[in-house]
Amino acid sequence: MAESDLALIGAWQSPFVLRARVALNIKNLQYVFHEETFGNKSELLLKSNPVHKKIPVLLHSGKSICESLIIVEYIDEVWSSSGHAILPSDPYGRAIARFWAAYIDEKFFPSLRSIAVVQDEAGKKAAVEQVITGISLLEKAFGESSKGKPFFGGDHIGYLDIAFGGMLGWIKVTETIAGLKLIDPETTPQLAQWAEKFIHDPAVSGVFPDIGTLTEYSKVVIAKLRGSAGAK
Amino acid sequence: MAESDLALIGAWQSPFVLRARVALNIKNLQYVFHEETFGNKSELLLKSNPVHKKIPVLLHSGKSICESLIIVEYIDEVWSSSGHAILPSDPYGRAIARFWAAYIDEKFFPSLRSIAVVQDEAGKKAAVEQVITGISLLEKAFGESSKGKPFFGGDHIGYLDIAFGGMLGWIKVTETIAGLKLIDPETTPQLAQWAEKFIHDPAVSGVFPDIGTLTEYSKVVIAKLRGSAGAK
Repeated sequence: MAESDLALIGAWQSPFVLRARVALNIKNLQYVFHEETFGNKSELLLKSNPVHKKIPVLLHSGKSICESLIIVEYIDEVWSSSGHAILPSDPYGRAIARFWAAYIDEKFFPSLRSIAVVQDEAGKKAAVEQVITGISLLEKAFGESSKGKPFFGGDHIGYLDIAFGGMLGWIKVTETIAGLKLIDPETTPQLAQWAEKFIHDPAVSGVFPDIGTLTEYSKVVIAKLRGSAGAK
Repeated sequence: MAESDLALIGAWQSPFVLRARVALNIKNLQYVFHEETFGNKSELLLKSNPVHKKIPVLLHSGKSICESLIIVEYIDEVWSSSGHAILPSDPYGRAIARFWAAYIDEKFFPSLRSIAVVQDEAGKKAAVEQVITGISLLEKAFGESSKGKPFFGGDHIGYLDIAFGGMLGWIKVTETIAGLKLIDPETTPQLAQWAEKFIHDPAVSGVFPDIGTLTEYSKVVIAKLRGSAGAK
């Protein structure tokens, strides 16, 4: 579907931007991609998200929609008849998907980030434990949500697939730089299978970051984050 | 509407529990209220919300729904034909309401809490500034959302009214104990009028905490929180 008035402010490295891009792909929407440069916020971004000044921002018919999960719900609601539904159809399914998506943003991702950024051993160890706990909880949640189907959303990529799948590139980078195995065919067989299916899905494969390039990029970001943490 | 299989685990002091109770009242739902005691989590709570172990939890037909804003959406979706709609009817209106609700949880409330708990003057000053910025942003958002009507949601209490209104008791307590005026007829006239209307709404007045009792309770909590912060 051609949408003349649809654009996304983002960056290829961002797990949150990836969520919005996958949702746009599911709905077969064409859009202009305004690429931000790390450490240099554009005027367009500052004007479109004055409160948080963060990507992603969806620009649609003169309106700005901010925050990745809110963007995903907006896309699903506005283009409800395109592609497939992203949110589960029943209120309880939606509540569960929203619960785990919030868990990923509030608990899982900050811990994942800490594994790479935190420099003291005790802090790093605690972060690794929190991430492993999170993955174990999500392995269990996968069994309950997917009901034997390939995705949290069932036959197709849904809201929780997008929320967690957006993190997969950074999970793989963290595994590489910290010498860990976080999603493992032995310990989390369902998530291991799911991750492969997610990455190779037609809505994802064209926008999923190259892990080698993301690993190189992560080294620059981690050095900057460690520098700013040390300067506090 | 009598719902034989509906219960809420909560506590009268919690701004997050208040959100769920207002939503239940809007839909005219009867429910069992399982009151938690501060510092002593019940078996029912631990079993119903094993991930966060936090209130509120809605129990409905053998299912547990956690996280206050998720509960409010669940109530609106399940009982869509009772009372009035809580979420705005259009996707953009929903995105804006969700954006500010997330802002309240992630930015506003932690700063409000810090005003009372943080003990160093610089930290307290920064928290006051963040809260005043937040209230000023919400005053502007009110004008855009309400379009001249009494509530963020228009003629009736909606999602953002519930998200922000849940905090009003604690805003008043913070004003008292810190000697501040945060929502003020001079500087934030729309929010000042809105707050009065919210507190006296039939869906709110019966469950809104008594400010004197909440102030007394807050002294106990602040002392405990300061103690645990000091022990870190």
